[in-house]
Amino acid sequence: MFHIVLLEPEIPANTGNIGRTCVAVGARLHLIEPLGFRLNEKNLKRAGMDYWKDLDVRTYIDYADFLEQNPGAKIYMATTKAAKVYTEVRYEPDCYIMFGKESAGIPEEILVRHKEDCVRIPMIGDTRSLNLGNSAAIILYEALRQNQFAGLNLEGHLHRLEW
Amino acid sequence: MFHIVLLEPEIPANTGNIGRTCVAVGARLHLIEPLGFRLNEKNLKRAGMDYWKDLDVRTYIDYADFLEQNPGAKIYMATTKAAKVYTEVRYEPDCYIMFGKESAGIPEEILVRHKEDCVRIPMIGDTRSLNLGNSAAIILYEALRQNQFAGLNLEGHLHRLEW
Repeated sequence: MFHIVLLEPEIPANTGNIGRTCVAVGARLHLIEPLGFRLNEKNLKRAGMDYWKDLDVRTYIDYADFLEQNPGAKIYMATTKAAKVYTEVRYEPDCYIMFGKESAGIPEEILVRHKEDCVRIPMIGDTRSLNLGNSAAIILYEALRQNQFAGLNLEGHLHRLEW
Repeated sequence: MFHIVLLEPEIPANTGNIGRTCVAVGARLHLIEPLGFRLNEKNLKRAGMDYWKDLDVRTYIDYADFLEQNPGAKIYMATTKAAKVYTEVRYEPDCYIMFGKESAGIPEEILVRHKEDCVRIPMIGDTRSLNLGNSAAIILYEALRQNQFAGLNLEGHLHRLEW
């Protein structure tokens, strides 16, 4: 099982979107507080997030708490500041992929201690950025691809017509 | 240059999101009407889509118009109904990746004539689905990966600290 970690996410639609992706592939979502929103039933219902009940999600009061509760976790850190591309590393089963808050990313004080585990999604120049939900989907699916999409449904079929 | 094609998209946030991804990687976005929203200046501004002015976007009155204006286009069709996985095909430069409307996908009448070009993103079971913006990002970045992320910035750097 892969793990997605959101460090202090700010925008509820992004966390919801990432939760939906995690449900679709059986990944576990780790949310590190403070969050920029409340995960209560009323808000989830209003946002149409009926899939949230199927999500394997854990929350932590801070980054230290997350580290303590996930001892030995192999954590890749997604950041535009990374020196290598996200496809250059091997995502072993059970690894963690972490994303920082939308407005600031992962603090450099954390990144600087983990240079080899920092990965970048290539883009034009430095000024553009991808939506957080897209970034999570891109790296998670690269990890799944490297592991032959184990456990996922590889084949669909037409419903009304026939090939 | 890669091309993303949205056939009758319904939800403006998804098209906006995909437009942002296209700007980030220099892809062209093709929108086939009818759209479920209006692409006027007021709506774009309200949605905070300041990147839209940098987007290479073309619109068409229908699918036939799109085909006529893009003769010889190699089109991959993203659908949960496909018999093969999106990583199994080779995305040549200048190919098109098409997505159907959020509520229904690409019509089976179109899919059935292009079985070999239909590609699926693996998920658990049949009932789950990914957000349209995520689906587009996942396949587009697989195409970019296969083409060595040509033209994109592969390396970032810390801003305040040093590795």
